Amino acid sequence: MPPDPTPDDAPSAAGGLAAALRDWSAALGAERVRTDDALLDRYAATTLPSAPRPLAVLFPRDRDQVVACVRGARATGVPLYPISRGRNWGYGDACPPRPGQVVLDLSGMNRVLDVDETLASAEIEPGVTQGQLADLLEARGGALWLDSTGAGPDTSIVGNILDRGFGHTPYGNRPLAVCGLEVVTGRGEILRTGFGHYADAQAHATFPYGLGPSLDGLFMQSNFGVVTRLRLWLMPRPQAYGLFVCSLPGDGDLEPAVETLRGLKLDGTLRSVVHLGNDLRLLSSLQTARSLGLGSGALDASRRAALRGKAGIGAWTFAGGLYGEGDQVRTAGRRLRRLARARGWRFELVTGRTLAAADRLAPLARRLGLARQALARLSAARGLYDLNRGRPSRGFLAGAYWRHRAGLPERFPEHAEPALDDCGLLWLSPVLPATGPAARQLLELVEPLFAAHGFDFLVTFSTVNERSLAAVMTIAFDRTDPAEARRAEACYEACFEAVMAAGFVPYRVGIQSMPRLAEGSQGFWPTVARLREALDPDGIIAPGRYEPDPGPDPGRENRPR
Amino acid sequence: MPPDPTPDDAPSAAGGLAAALRDWSAALGAERVRTDDALLDRYAATTLPSAPRPLAVLFPRDRDQVVACVRGARATGVPLYPISRGRNWGYGDACPPRPGQVVLDLSGMNRVLDVDETLASAEIEPGVTQGQLADLLEARGGALWLDSTGAGPDTSIVGNILDRGFGHTPYGNRPLAVCGLEVVTGRGEILRTGFGHYADAQAHATFPYGLGPSLDGLFMQSNFGVVTRLRLWLMPRPQAYGLFVCSLPGDGDLEPAVETLRGLKLDGTLRSVVHLGNDLRLLSSLQTARSLGLGSGALDASRRAALRGKAGIGAWTFAGGLYGEGDQVRTAGRRLRRLARARGWRFELVTGRTLAAADRLAPLARRLGLARQALARLSAARGLYDLNRGRPSRGFLAGAYWRHRAGLPERFPEHAEPALDDCGLLWLSPVLPATGPAARQLLELVEPLFAAHGFDFLVTFSTVNERSLAAVMTIAFDRTDPAEARRAEACYEACFEAVMAAGFVPYRVGIQSMPRLAEGSQGFWPTVARLREALDPDGIIAPGRYEPDPGPDPGRENRPR
Repeated sequence: MPPDPTPDDAPSAAGGLAAALRDWSAALGAERVRTDDALLDRYAATTLPSAPRPLAVLFPRDRDQVVACVRGARATGVPLYPISRGRNWGYGDACPPRPGQVVLDLSGMNRVLDVDETLASAEIEPGVTQGQLADLLEARGGALWLDSTGAGPDTSIVGNILDRGFGHTPYGNRPLAVCGLEVVTGRGEILRTGFGHYADAQAHATFPYGLGPSLDGLFMQSNFGVVTRLRLWLMPRPQAYGLFVCSLPGDGDLEPAVETLRGLKLDGTLRSVVHLGNDLRLLSSLQTARSLGLGSGALDASRRAALRGKAGIGAWTFAGGLYGEGDQVRTAGRRLRRLARARGWRFELVTGRTLAAADRLAPLARRLGLARQALARLSAARGLYDLNRGRPSRGFLAGAYWRHRAGLPERFPEHAEPALDDCGLLWLSPVLPATGPAARQLLELVEPLFAAHGFDFLVTFSTVNERSLAAVMTIAFDRTDPAEARRAEACYEACFEAVMAAGFVPYRVGIQSMPRLAEGSQGFWPTVARLREALDPDGIIAPGRYEPDPGPDPGRENRPR
Repeated sequence: MPPDPTPDDAPSAAGGLAAALRDWSAALGAERVRTDDALLDRYAATTLPSAPRPLAVLFPRDRDQVVACVRGARATGVPLYPISRGRNWGYGDACPPRPGQVVLDLSGMNRVLDVDETLASAEIEPGVTQGQLADLLEARGGALWLDSTGAGPDTSIVGNILDRGFGHTPYGNRPLAVCGLEVVTGRGEILRTGFGHYADAQAHATFPYGLGPSLDGLFMQSNFGVVTRLRLWLMPRPQAYGLFVCSLPGDGDLEPAVETLRGLKLDGTLRSVVHLGNDLRLLSSLQTARSLGLGSGALDASRRAALRGKAGIGAWTFAGGLYGEGDQVRTAGRRLRRLARARGWRFELVTGRTLAAADRLAPLARRLGLARQALARLSAARGLYDLNRGRPSRGFLAGAYWRHRAGLPERFPEHAEPALDDCGLLWLSPVLPATGPAARQLLELVEPLFAAHGFDFLVTFSTVNERSLAAVMTIAFDRTDPAEARRAEACYEACFEAVMAAGFVPYRVGIQSMPRLAEGSQGFWPTVARLREALDPDGIIAPGRYEPDPGPDPGRENRPR
């Protein structure tokens, strides 16, 4: 049974909930309407210090059941929080931004409805995972590649896109790969965007704007409706592909790296999302603080330099893919290598041939004790090589366990469930113009705050488009230590305030920051509220999701034990 | 004085208009509120067979005056029709879609507010023309290039983008080059999209999505507000640039050309918008039917073939730009040439060097009577060469005069004002998936309808993105002949119905088709109407613009004399 809603955390009375549960059970079948504690515990599991617990979980099987859920919610005033796979780690996991909501779990709607190899796209439901689509495309012969994020094969593609996640390939600016949505609005009506609402429109899967205003943007980072289908553009397998990895020895190499990457993005040499990470971010993707034998505080500078030396990595590393005809990839590779050499950066281009050769040579090299660092780097590069051609891997989830007391789970990476494993993870993701000075200003602002709160500073900068970087800064903490969790929260809040005050607005926020989105803003959010009213007049879809709250913080449940 | 509004064409009573004019005069000054017949005649000039005449024209000087105009409109119920430069030729020119509206002419708001050479963008007002920005960028040293359409230097950039026009360069998919709008909504409130509403957001000019739902799409092809500023991404001048022109001898070359172009777009070889035109479209860009001595009916097949032979052009021609480092452009050029040769297509790559050499050799060649066709082609290519590097030209407006009784104006191209010169022009622009069979199906559907109505079939296919073509089909007619104008209208209506029935929905429509947009559509337009109500509750911005009309056609004024 759901816990009794208390007056200040549940907009609907307990009677409303009971009526809603009856209504939904009638429409979906009782087995698709769950309120048992064990299940709710699982959905309330979070990587944040705390997050609201849902009142119930619904499992619609198809779009018509989603319509029934929304109508039931409207009739009873009990709000729904739609999730696709619920793996929004570091930003709120499966948890709604406010208490008193019922999770609408769309994971059972996981059909790939169409794959078009000529025009390179697929139509998918929200439950489709990265791994599922990658496997399906591979099984069909691999003529199409997916864009993949580092969050592993079990995450939803639609869910990530609706939060404007980004990936690694030329299709990594993911909102640009969307060509039409099917949405159940907060009114319970079905809306098809783009050309999709015209019966038999021939270009529905190829022309995203449609005719008249374009509505797709309304359904990203919002709470206007439930997306039940999405047409995703895919990348035809290029004739040639290579991964480049570039290692920069000094911290001061950051500025020229950012300037170089901007130039290469703007002139079309780099078509994909390049990720530039600091030493700790790279280390944390390979091992945990525990496995390195580090204590519980943040690393000091000398220890950090020693670790860097031992791992043979630079202060910064950037990596990305090159795609195209053979001569296109060679031309671009030569250009990058030339630029890197001029700066004294170590540059490696990893191709399928390189990896095969490494496999052949590895046993011998190991026996002779040769080239150990180079081999370790190549092995690490293999994961990136696959990721940059759309093969998701759980390996990159290691970062979530960086400060986990127990280190990586025994069966990692086959088993990796950061929220269920009590990983502590807060992500802060400000956007900056892609200039060296802006990157430096951001670091100088935030790194001291991490240090002051006793956390390692893990950061990546990603070229989300030609002119911007998205920084992703990780506060990894031991969630089983309440004092550390409180410190993590304080660190996050201090950083959030600092970046907002300096004009580094995030591209995405965790549920804990959604109430504060109107700070420093003029005119925008009241307009958003009016638009929402047009599509969800009763406010029953995900109240609080990307919706600033003028009232007092309603408090949080599910604090760490 | 404005004509007395008749009951069925003016939603507001004459008293409302008088009150509105007083209100606007007080806010703007009487000289910025015009109702004199000569001026209204000029604004009512149209390339369509007929279009509604405005009641008055307002000339706001800045955003605050736009706010005043909107508030006056709300108070009195007299609707506004915002135009930027009013050169929406072939789609409605400066004319509102319904009678009873007052034109809000933003041409006086023509400041370039900022140019950022590092991050490659400019902030512009709606009155800024292509020619103005191109000249300004050139004067600053030419480090940034504009994307230009073929509509000449006097057209508005913002106006074109808000109708989702497309250009020629890698920035030719113009909505993708927009990074933030300032809008005066129908409520008279100021809205900044993207990050623009956060004071001092550092990435406001580099990251278009902002945080929360993205609203930019709402203001394209709609009537929710008046856009008063737009941040436009510009292209850094590439190290190397070349124009390719490829001529295809037979009509049957269309399908392989479309398939080839799709492949080259998808694999990233072609980053720009390539335009593929038929013989008549190419001929009409160089001369008029009159100058060719053609009669008034449509050309027959044998005459057409003869003209083609004389001009030395193929059944189809496609052209586009290559941009990048020298070796990138060479690599791509080689690849295109190889593909063209294998098909037996004539391929030319025109660079600055080619053009300079041609200039040196031309006098000699002319004296010797040599290479006449090649020189003529090169001369024609010069305009395309400039257009594909963002230099707009009036030369391409020749097409608008194709069936003009008097041929090209004496001072063409310095003087070119299709609407004022009584050019007859109807554009129909269906979108199709970029496949050979789809292109053929569209031609087989529409070309016979042009022939049946006695019009030359002028068509281009443009690669507006990797997967779609926008076809632009021109009905060029003699507007001074009422019977021919009626025939043009009938031809357009027959084609519009045919393409809609076959699922070839246009990317953009003329004002005459806006009442019919809901035909064959489900669920979308009622949602748009609700969203509009949120931003323009009184419906005073451009009623009927991309807004289907369920009622009877209100009739049209301003029929050809």
